[in-house]
Amino acid sequence: MAPAVLSSFATEIIIPVCSVIGIVFSLVQWFLVSRVKVTPDNNGPPSSNSKNGYDDYLIEEEEGVNDHNVVIKCAEIQNAISEGSTSFLFTMYQYVGIFMVVFAILIFLFLGSVEGFSTKSQKCTYDVTMMCKPALATAAFSTIAFLLGAITSIISGFLGMKIATYANARTTLEARKGVGKAFVTAFRSGAVMGFLLAANGLLVLYITINVFKLYYGDDWEGLFEAITGYGLGGSSMALFGRVGGGIYTKAADVGADLVGKVERNIPEDDPRNPAVIADNVGDNVGDIAGMGSDLFGSYAESSCAALVVASISSFGIEHDFTAMCYPLLVSSVGILVCLITTLFATDFFEIKVVDEIQSALKKQLIISTVLMTVGIAIVSFIALPTSFTIYNFGVQKVVYNWQLFLCVCVGLWAGLIIGFVTEYYTSNAYSPVQDVADSCRTGAATNVIFGLALGYKSVIIPIFAIAVSIFVSFSFAAMYGIAVAALGMLSTIATGLAIDAYGPISDNAGGIAEMAGMSHRIRERTDALDAAGNTTAAIGKGFAIGSAALVSLALFGAFVSRAGIQTVDVLTPKVFIGLIVGAMLPYWFSAMTMKSVGSAALKMVEEVRRQFNTIPGLMEGLAKPDYTTCVKISTDASLKEMIPPGALVMLTPLIVGTFFGVETLSGVLAGALVSGVQVAISASNTGGAWDNAKKYIEAGASEHARTLGPKGSEPHKAAVIGDTIGDPLKDTSGPSLNILIKLMAVESLVFAPFFAAHGGLLFKL
Amino acid sequence: MAPAVLSSFATEIIIPVCSVIGIVFSLVQWFLVSRVKVTPDNNGPPSSNSKNGYDDYLIEEEEGVNDHNVVIKCAEIQNAISEGSTSFLFTMYQYVGIFMVVFAILIFLFLGSVEGFSTKSQKCTYDVTMMCKPALATAAFSTIAFLLGAITSIISGFLGMKIATYANARTTLEARKGVGKAFVTAFRSGAVMGFLLAANGLLVLYITINVFKLYYGDDWEGLFEAITGYGLGGSSMALFGRVGGGIYTKAADVGADLVGKVERNIPEDDPRNPAVIADNVGDNVGDIAGMGSDLFGSYAESSCAALVVASISSFGIEHDFTAMCYPLLVSSVGILVCLITTLFATDFFEIKVVDEIQSALKKQLIISTVLMTVGIAIVSFIALPTSFTIYNFGVQKVVYNWQLFLCVCVGLWAGLIIGFVTEYYTSNAYSPVQDVADSCRTGAATNVIFGLALGYKSVIIPIFAIAVSIFVSFSFAAMYGIAVAALGMLSTIATGLAIDAYGPISDNAGGIAEMAGMSHRIRERTDALDAAGNTTAAIGKGFAIGSAALVSLALFGAFVSRAGIQTVDVLTPKVFIGLIVGAMLPYWFSAMTMKSVGSAALKMVEEVRRQFNTIPGLMEGLAKPDYTTCVKISTDASLKEMIPPGALVMLTPLIVGTFFGVETLSGVLAGALVSGVQVAISASNTGGAWDNAKKYIEAGASEHARTLGPKGSEPHKAAVIGDTIGDPLKDTSGPSLNILIKLMAVESLVFAPFFAAHGGLLFKL
Repeated sequence: MAPAVLSSFATEIIIPVCSVIGIVFSLVQWFLVSRVKVTPDNNGPPSSNSKNGYDDYLIEEEEGVNDHNVVIKCAEIQNAISEGSTSFLFTMYQYVGIFMVVFAILIFLFLGSVEGFSTKSQKCTYDVTMMCKPALATAAFSTIAFLLGAITSIISGFLGMKIATYANARTTLEARKGVGKAFVTAFRSGAVMGFLLAANGLLVLYITINVFKLYYGDDWEGLFEAITGYGLGGSSMALFGRVGGGIYTKAADVGADLVGKVERNIPEDDPRNPAVIADNVGDNVGDIAGMGSDLFGSYAESSCAALVVASISSFGIEHDFTAMCYPLLVSSVGILVCLITTLFATDFFEIKVVDEIQSALKKQLIISTVLMTVGIAIVSFIALPTSFTIYNFGVQKVVYNWQLFLCVCVGLWAGLIIGFVTEYYTSNAYSPVQDVADSCRTGAATNVIFGLALGYKSVIIPIFAIAVSIFVSFSFAAMYGIAVAALGMLSTIATGLAIDAYGPISDNAGGIAEMAGMSHRIRERTDALDAAGNTTAAIGKGFAIGSAALVSLALFGAFVSRAGIQTVDVLTPKVFIGLIVGAMLPYWFSAMTMKSVGSAALKMVEEVRRQFNTIPGLMEGLAKPDYTTCVKISTDASLKEMIPPGALVMLTPLIVGTFFGVETLSGVLAGALVSGVQVAISASNTGGAWDNAKKYIEAGASEHARTLGPKGSEPHKAAVIGDTIGDPLKDTSGPSLNILIKLMAVESLVFAPFFAAHGGLLFKL
Repeated sequence: MAPAVLSSFATEIIIPVCSVIGIVFSLVQWFLVSRVKVTPDNNGPPSSNSKNGYDDYLIEEEEGVNDHNVVIKCAEIQNAISEGSTSFLFTMYQYVGIFMVVFAILIFLFLGSVEGFSTKSQKCTYDVTMMCKPALATAAFSTIAFLLGAITSIISGFLGMKIATYANARTTLEARKGVGKAFVTAFRSGAVMGFLLAANGLLVLYITINVFKLYYGDDWEGLFEAITGYGLGGSSMALFGRVGGGIYTKAADVGADLVGKVERNIPEDDPRNPAVIADNVGDNVGDIAGMGSDLFGSYAESSCAALVVASISSFGIEHDFTAMCYPLLVSSVGILVCLITTLFATDFFEIKVVDEIQSALKKQLIISTVLMTVGIAIVSFIALPTSFTIYNFGVQKVVYNWQLFLCVCVGLWAGLIIGFVTEYYTSNAYSPVQDVADSCRTGAATNVIFGLALGYKSVIIPIFAIAVSIFVSFSFAAMYGIAVAALGMLSTIATGLAIDAYGPISDNAGGIAEMAGMSHRIRERTDALDAAGNTTAAIGKGFAIGSAALVSLALFGAFVSRAGIQTVDVLTPKVFIGLIVGAMLPYWFSAMTMKSVGSAALKMVEEVRRQFNTIPGLMEGLAKPDYTTCVKISTDASLKEMIPPGALVMLTPLIVGTFFGVETLSGVLAGALVSGVQVAISASNTGGAWDNAKKYIEAGASEHARTLGPKGSEPHKAAVIGDTIGDPLKDTSGPSLNILIKLMAVESLVFAPFFAAHGGLLFKL
């Protein structure tokens, strides 16, 4: 067993340096975006010559660049969206803040009670020959880690929203100069979010570990058990971000579409529609802030799962700091790889025509995956000893470094496959979406039937990809393998988030162009950006779901180890009832969130109708609608409605663990995982496909598409109905399910010491 | 341990006698139905006086009873439907016949190869001190049992279809005399099917056991292992019946509705619609023959699962024939209980007004459950020793007779709860469906969103009911407990099938009234019968799904025992990948079946449109449409399209077992079970709710409903779209999933000796 090449000291340097590089890079991107001015500028173009900078003026064609009114209008709309988003998030944070405090107290009380709040040192859980820090300390540190995770998650989401609302009008204005310029602006803004989140998440986690180590010293078992609170904090914020944001955005979107597009026959994002600002705010709080928190949660959880397993393996037992930090090193290299990848989109190549957008985004996925494979190989061979042991449900299993390399790679490449399959099923360049569009000929009913069938079918390959990753990584390195496979999938998170955030930014840019009354050609360009964005959003969700599946399984494994269960045998009544009830939870959860969107949308519809009926001159564009009331409806609905599904997710592990015990809870986790993944993938792909089927008919880019269109034709109306149904599926229920499965797993892991000590009350009676 | 009160001789008598009583009772019902004449009769009413017979003429009011033309027309239509159904089923049986032969050969070869086709006796699997019959004999007898099960299933479905098509016009004609008369006719016809099926299934199984015993003698282990082929045969026919029939009926229904109701604005079942006969044929081949085969399959499988477990428990080891026959005795008593229950609907009470229909059907469920509880108590205490042992994965577990009584009861009552919950979510008398109807105000999109949410929500209580049944029965008597709980749920199968078959018969009766040009009032009566029928159909599906869940689990347990696996540990890679892939299978399967319905419906739409456009005078009712072409489209589509989903279900266990081995197969079975149940329940309830939301608007029975209607209003159009989407969900995908989960389990059980001996090739390499 040769020791690792990399010294502890080098590790101590590399991780923070990479984080800082990531943060600096994102600030540079922000600076580049900020050079697009949203204030009217009369001094004419400056004369610098920088390649692909923002100064070379007339690359493609210029359109109304000097029209002051347009710029002022864009700035106004941007402000309205930004203010709406900020105000919503702040209101949400107040609610969430209360939850955080209450839940932090709960964590402390539950974990503190494990040893009766004793302040004495105790025997370690795994190595009973050693003494570990008291359970009370772990309770306190877990609580702190929870709060840190929660705050980092909030900051990640909030900053993402800020840059997105900062970039959308700038993208619109750049679209006047050409589609390439607009693309770069939107993509750079996405990159700001991606890098900030990845780097911040890593840095905070790294600092936390080092600070906690001051207290824990050599008790790594306790140290990394406490660190899992970080994952729980990140994920529980993501729950509210996803669910609250998801309800917000879709209530506004569905409400706006139902009255505007269907009843009044006015275009999407028309400024006469009272719900239009709420709709745009929704994109930022749901798709940006929610998605950011979600992926941050996955990232934090998979790191925590890997660390907690490593701490009871040879890395932890032998206090090999470099090997222990392997997950963080993989993430560090990921930041560098993504940095290079980003340059391919923004600097090395330049997009000139609309058709290149989709392939540029796809190249991002491929380049980052290929480079990352090399990065992982390097890290695996310099940071790991050639062989080591990994804790595997009671026994130590020997693992070689090349095996761990394969574990990370299999996750990484499974992510790419999931991305491609998602693209195939949701992009209107391929036959599945075109078939769905074609079925609109016979009306909305066949459209919905074909769309649902497409979603179901799109589950097959991703599930096989996940199954293969699980099999390979599980066979090589047990739960640690799964955790690093998840990390592999998330190692290119900065790029993934960049192309994902790019979508809503382009969507907003289109909305702003429409509202500012810019010409048809500008709108065409932003629409092209947006259509690619729909697909990337679906890909992003695919990643989120795939990684969630792996993460949850890793957390589940760690939970089982910590709870001291030897096997989770399906053929015991306790486990089986957990399994079947767990498989039901995604349905219960989806029922709640879909109904919430439906009810909130109904309220929105009534308000929008009321305004059209009572405000004279609104349809003629002579009077302004009352945007604020619509924003308020979405805000109130989402805050009220996020509580029951949130409670379902947060309380289930506590109730099951406390009353039914760890075996049943294991069943619940496994059931929710295997069932939730399917529901989530099918829901988000169905929704994405319907959206793009509609866009396919609208764009009329092919002979076939033209026979279905134009806007307002019967097939188009059927497609709009499908799109509306898909909204809550793809942006509320589907993506929230990731969090359901991850969060229940991480919560179980954090509370495992309590359940192991005091759980299963009902069966004890 | 006191021996059972009931002697073997008494058992030998009771079972066949009860079967014969059931068959005689069903023939009596058939005779009563046949007294309604569908030939014109000028001799006036006879003067007999029998209570509630068919002779007392003018109970409510008479309408056009002497109109010869109407009667002749009804007879004609009935003939067309009957001929279409018979011809479709015969064509299907040709395909299925080929499959049966091929699969029978496969069974023989696979099972024969276990001991290399040796004709020598061998050591028993469980009790290795004893000698058992050679594997080759079990291969041969399993094959025979498979063929017997398949043929019984076919006969059950076919006879059900025959009586249904015999009764539909009679129901229409009786509706002229009043709703009560029509109800009794439809219900009696349903009872014919229910009793024939229950009694036949029991009798054939009983005879088979006795005949096989002549060869096997005291080798009960081999005997009941061979008997499991009966369940496989029953279920594999049900697969084709459900899938083929389901695609047939929904292709016709969706196609007819899309052009007729939506485009041409003509009523449902209008004779001008070319797809109308195909639609009515579909009800009979899908909802009647398919449902019949399905429930027969469940019944056969749960009996086989119970018998195979019992054969390796103390019943089998000690050769206690009465106790061994406990499952059959429960079914025998079930026939008597259902007989009494039926009299409550047909003779003891009389329906006078429309509102009483629903409650009369509901009372059937309650009465049969209450009486059956008493029946089970009696059987449990006279047929079982006070204590005995049950094989539980390697150990013998002591069980008391009162515990087994509770196992059966918990299944029975869980069935009732599932029935009531289904009624609550799918009947338009309650708020869930009314909410869905209300959401039609804002169009089809909100209708679909609310409908999907309703379906998801409707899963919760049934899953808890199933979980509790599993927990109780599993804890008391391991896999035997689960199997008898499933039998408990199915013990009132005759009544369940009667109220279930009643639905499509009423639906057809309404269609015939419309096509024969009978008055609006007749149609109103048949519509009322049909609305209740929609709910009972949903209840029937609820039962089918609930029992399928229990049956599959019991079969799964038997498979695990037979395959010699000690635990099915989720936390091993082989099992987990099985679990997640298994959970995906229901989606794959649904994608196939929904797409099939969609494509077939598109073809139907084109044909119907073509006929309307090219046949002059069709819309004016001057020319007759070409019904035959539409029947042919449905037939061809369903036969072609049933093959891929059929192959998926039949091949998955063979491929997984042969290449990945029994652990992975266990995971697949568990995953498919826990995920499939959810998809099935939500799909059938969503579909049922949409159908009844539409009917709610059409009937306009309340103030609220009238604000949404009338027919042709915008909300009504939205409701029709929902109804159309629900068609494949509730009648094709949803109910076929029962069979997916059951069939994979029983197939695994039958092939278990082969997999245990030669399976898992891939991992062996």
